[in-house]
Amino acid sequence: MAVYRLDLAYDGTGFHGYAKQPTVRTVQGELETALRHHVGDLETFVAGRTDKGVHATGQVVSFQAADDLDPRRVLRSLNGQLAPEISVLELCRAAPDFHARFSATGRRYVYRILAREAPDPFLARHSLHVTDRLDETPMDEGVQHLLGEHDFAAFCRRAEGRSSTRLLREVGWTRRGDVLELDIEASSFCHQMVRAIVALSIEVGRGRRSPDVFAAALASRDRAAAAGAAPPHGLTLTAVTY
Amino acid sequence: MAVYRLDLAYDGTGFHGYAKQPTVRTVQGELETALRHHVGDLETFVAGRTDKGVHATGQVVSFQAADDLDPRRVLRSLNGQLAPEISVLELCRAAPDFHARFSATGRRYVYRILAREAPDPFLARHSLHVTDRLDETPMDEGVQHLLGEHDFAAFCRRAEGRSSTRLLREVGWTRRGDVLELDIEASSFCHQMVRAIVALSIEVGRGRRSPDVFAAALASRDRAAAAGAAPPHGLTLTAVTY
Repeated sequence: MAVYRLDLAYDGTGFHGYAKQPTVRTVQGELETALRHHVGDLETFVAGRTDKGVHATGQVVSFQAADDLDPRRVLRSLNGQLAPEISVLELCRAAPDFHARFSATGRRYVYRILAREAPDPFLARHSLHVTDRLDETPMDEGVQHLLGEHDFAAFCRRAEGRSSTRLLREVGWTRRGDVLELDIEASSFCHQMVRAIVALSIEVGRGRRSPDVFAAALASRDRAAAAGAAPPHGLTLTAVTY
Repeated sequence: MAVYRLDLAYDGTGFHGYAKQPTVRTVQGELETALRHHVGDLETFVAGRTDKGVHATGQVVSFQAADDLDPRRVLRSLNGQLAPEISVLELCRAAPDFHARFSATGRRYVYRILAREAPDPFLARHSLHVTDRLDETPMDEGVQHLLGEHDFAAFCRRAEGRSSTRLLREVGWTRRGDVLELDIEASSFCHQMVRAIVALSIEVGRGRRSPDVFAAALASRDRAAAAGAAPPHGLTLTAVTY
């Protein structure tokens, strides 16, 4: 047996998230069904279990299969079988101890907001449309408070007994025309963490809260100190680092 | 009564083209239904009647309505009513003699091709996926033969009694990563003209024909001298000039 690494992109619009579930359409479900034609029964591991409606351009999956798999042939065949919303970007043999989740040292996400009166049909599926004007300068200033290692309890859905301490390595809001992008990288993220950071950023961008609210929310460790979670469809997992 | 200009973007994937038809979903049909709430019965004119599956980011429509229409309020309301695949970008009062179709002096289209092994879920709806390697240099060289005023009969679906002479002002293939783009502007285009130019370009990009095939096809005035028509979903109307 050998370990394989598979790089994956998907438009999450039509899926109930990445992780397989018995009765609904999921990315993992469709991927494993397609893979089974080539490798038989298998278990796959994923770097970032994205929620319902979240997209990926740089997701990573690993699995064990026979030594003699022909990655190029399997990649072509998988892309022929899979729905157009899922694409296998690369497939290659990995080191024997490679594990998509446990070997990962970082995950990077982008969250996109279209901030203008008129919607854009070409961004509708992959960005949040906000008709208010948003000022990216205080938004970017606010999220800088999050850099470093912190207990992100204020930005995490509570999970009993699990730590919400994470190392945030890069974060920033930038504007390209009417599109605002949050680019964020951390060791890992707890559940809904990026979307909670976005929701509070929007409050700051509208001028309803000052950039310092991020520091106050962090210090409070209280989920109620933030501002809920932004919708999933603006969020994309763009890269995993090893 | 006054004349109004409405700028429109749409993802053509789910529509049977722009022009309204009695029993199927069309962009014009949905737009007029939404407009009727504000202006009552009306007739709309469009700069470029796009085919089934073709998109637009810069379509222009004109119509007559009462002098006292509030464009800002109507724009907001239309965008609330319309499906997310259609967006009204701008709405303003125009000169009394403005006509979206007859006043237009040029139309600009882009055709996108993703040329690589793996598909891209985020480009799938708006670009043609070709798994072969395409060389954009001879493709670009080939289409330069089309510049200027010519009888484009070899690139047009035959329409009895209609001229197929057009003035082509700009044309070129460029590459950005794995994406090849044809950017093309003409006084107007006859039916399937851009898609016929793309189909022949692909043959040249694959090395099956030389760039000179464009000159030969033009001179022949014979539809059979070209190479059919590329699929509609790679095509987007990007601008209309007045």
